Amino acid sequence: MKVHNFNAGPSVLPNEVLYKASKALIDFEGSGMSILEIGHRTAPFIAVMEEARSLVKELMQLDDDFEVLYLQGGATMQFMQVPMNLLDNSGTAAYVDTGVWSNKAIKEAKLFGYVDVVASSKESNYNHIPKQFTIPPQASYLHITTNNTIYGTQWQMTPVTDVPLIADMSSDIMSRSMDFNKYSLIYAGAQKNMGAAGATMVAIRKSMLGKVTRKIPSILDYKNHIENGSMLNTPPVFAVYISMLTLRWLKEQGGVSAIEQLNDKKAALLYDEIDHNPLFRGTVVKEDRSKMNACFVMDKPEMEEEFLKFCKKEDIVGIKGHRLSGGFRVSMYNALPYESVEVMVEAMKYFSLKKA
Amino acid sequence: MKVHNFNAGPSVLPNEVLYKASKALIDFEGSGMSILEIGHRTAPFIAVMEEARSLVKELMQLDDDFEVLYLQGGATMQFMQVPMNLLDNSGTAAYVDTGVWSNKAIKEAKLFGYVDVVASSKESNYNHIPKQFTIPPQASYLHITTNNTIYGTQWQMTPVTDVPLIADMSSDIMSRSMDFNKYSLIYAGAQKNMGAAGATMVAIRKSMLGKVTRKIPSILDYKNHIENGSMLNTPPVFAVYISMLTLRWLKEQGGVSAIEQLNDKKAALLYDEIDHNPLFRGTVVKEDRSKMNACFVMDKPEMEEEFLKFCKKEDIVGIKGHRLSGGFRVSMYNALPYESVEVMVEAMKYFSLKKA
Repeated sequence: MKVHNFNAGPSVLPNEVLYKASKALIDFEGSGMSILEIGHRTAPFIAVMEEARSLVKELMQLDDDFEVLYLQGGATMQFMQVPMNLLDNSGTAAYVDTGVWSNKAIKEAKLFGYVDVVASSKESNYNHIPKQFTIPPQASYLHITTNNTIYGTQWQMTPVTDVPLIADMSSDIMSRSMDFNKYSLIYAGAQKNMGAAGATMVAIRKSMLGKVTRKIPSILDYKNHIENGSMLNTPPVFAVYISMLTLRWLKEQGGVSAIEQLNDKKAALLYDEIDHNPLFRGTVVKEDRSKMNACFVMDKPEMEEEFLKFCKKEDIVGIKGHRLSGGFRVSMYNALPYESVEVMVEAMKYFSLKKA
Repeated sequence: MKVHNFNAGPSVLPNEVLYKASKALIDFEGSGMSILEIGHRTAPFIAVMEEARSLVKELMQLDDDFEVLYLQGGATMQFMQVPMNLLDNSGTAAYVDTGVWSNKAIKEAKLFGYVDVVASSKESNYNHIPKQFTIPPQASYLHITTNNTIYGTQWQMTPVTDVPLIADMSSDIMSRSMDFNKYSLIYAGAQKNMGAAGATMVAIRKSMLGKVTRKIPSILDYKNHIENGSMLNTPPVFAVYISMLTLRWLKEQGGVSAIEQLNDKKAALLYDEIDHNPLFRGTVVKEDRSKMNACFVMDKPEMEEEFLKFCKKEDIVGIKGHRLSGGFRVSMYNALPYESVEVMVEAMKYFSLKKA
C-alpha cells in the first residue's frame, strides 16, 4: 500500500523506477553484482551515465552548445559554483529575489563579485513574482529561481534579456514545456522531478566558460567535469542510475509536454478546490501560482491541526506548510498520480462538509 | 550467484545490506514510501543520519571533540575543502606524497596557502611509504593518505608529530585498529569500506575550526554542517542509509578489531601466494604492503591477458591493475568474503600448474 505523497522533496517517484532499482540493488543487469558494487569506470555504468546525460538533452531539447553534468552537493553547491565559474571579482551579476532559495543564491554570489538584486517580492512575503526590473547591460548573467518551493510561486514566462540567463529549476524542471535554449545554465537538485537526492543536474553552455580569471579548485570547475564526461571522480552512481530510470519513465509518458498536461490537470483540480472551498484560501497571487507546490491556509488557523490529523488518517503525507509560509503545501511533482490529488480534494471537501 | 568482486571501489558490499536496502527501496520501515521518497527532515530519516554519525564515533572510538559529517563530492571535494577551512593564505601545510591521490590533494591545497611536500616516494614509482621527513613546526597540519589504492601501499604506523594530523582514509577506513584520536581530521569516500558512492564521511575536531580568515562559501564550511547536524541542505539520503546499514553490519561483525583479524587473514593468504608462486611478483616493498589493495605483476607480462581471461571464467571480477602500476590489483575490502580470496589463490595456483 502506498501513501499519497505530497512531500516537497525528496518526494514521490514512479513505481516502475523503484521496482527496477530494487532489483538492481541485488543484481544489476545479470552482472552478479549490485548496482552499488560495480566500478564506475566500467562499460555498464558509463552507459548509465551517458543515457542519463543524453535523456536530459533530448527531453529538454537542448541545443548542441549545452553540456549536461551530474554533480553532487545539491542546488546549494550550485549557489556558489555558478558565480565561482561565471562571475569575475570585478563583474556584476543580476539576481531576482523570489524567496529563501534565491536569497541563499544571492548570499553566495556576493563572495565572488558584485550582486545587483534587480527585483524582490520580499515585502509581500514572496506572494508573487516581480514583473518589472531593469538588468544592468554589463551583467555577467541574470539568475532566477523558476519555482519557489516554500512560497508556492512560479515564473510563468522567461524573462527577456540580452544577458545570459541562469536558472535554479530544482523544483519544476521538466514539469512544463519551455524554451530551455533561452537559458545559458540550468541547474536542479534531482530529488523532485529528476530522481532522488544525491545528484544535481547542471546543463551549461560551453560558450559560458573560460571568462573568469580566478583559480577554481578542480572539483568545482565545470570545465573539468565536461572534459571528463561527468566522471572527474567517482560519481554518485546510484543517484545517477535513479535519475536515468526516472528520465526513461518520463520519456515513456510522452516527455515534458505530455507530463505538463497531467500537471496542469492536477493543479487545476487542487486550485479549483482551494478557490471554492470556504475553509481554505490560497496564499499566492493567482497568476503566479506554482503548479508544483500549492500553498494555502485556513481562514480559521485553529482548525489546521485537526485537518492535518484528518488527512493523516486518509494516508495523505507531507502537506504541512513550511514554517515561513504556514498552513499547507501540497507538492505535485511529475510522479504524483492524478488520483492522489483527487484524494486530497475529497479530503478537503469532506472536512468542509463536516465543519459546515 | 554472486561474483568474486575485487573492484577497487565502488566495490563489494555485505549481502545483508543489499537485501535490506532493496526492501527499503519499495517500502521503508512500513511507511508506505520508498527510502527515496521520504522527506529528509522527517523523524525516520533524522534517525538514520544520527545512527550513521554515532556509529562512526563508536566504531572508531572517537573522543568528544570530534564531529562526524556526511558530505558530498568524494575525497576530491575534501582535497580542496580541507585547506579552504584549515590553511590560511599565509600559512603552511605539510603533505606527504605517496601517489596519485596525495598529489591531487597537494595540487588543491596550493590554491589556498603554502604547501611543503615533506616527503615523496615518487622516484621509486610509489612502491613504499617514506619514513624520514621533517615537519615544519609552524605547519597548520600534516596530510597523509593512509592507503594508496593505485600503488598498493599503506602506512603501517601513524606519524608522530606535534602539528595536527589529517588523513585521507578513503580506502582503508575502519579496516584496522588505529588510535584515530591521534588525528584532527579524517575523511573517506564511503564507497569502499563504509557504503556506496555518493557520501563522504568527515570526522573533524571542533577545535580545528575558526582559524582561517578567508570567507568560506556556506556549503563548504565545516562549521555550517556541524551546526546543522550534517543536514545543511538535502543530504544524499540513500547513500547515508547504505552507510548506516554497512556500519551496523560492521558492528555486528565485532567492529574494527574483529574485521581487522579477517582482513589480516585475507591479506596473508593472498600475499603468501604472490610470494611463493613463481609466475607472480609483488610490486611494493613488503613492509609497506596494503592489506586492502594487493598489487602484483607477472614476470612474463605477455601472460597477463591470458590470466585475466582465465580469472573471468572463474567469476573473478575487477583485478586488472591501474594503468599507472600495471599487472593486477586485488582489492580486499571489509565486505569481501575470505572465500573470494581462496578462489583467487586457487586460480593463481591452478594457472601456475597449467603453465609449468
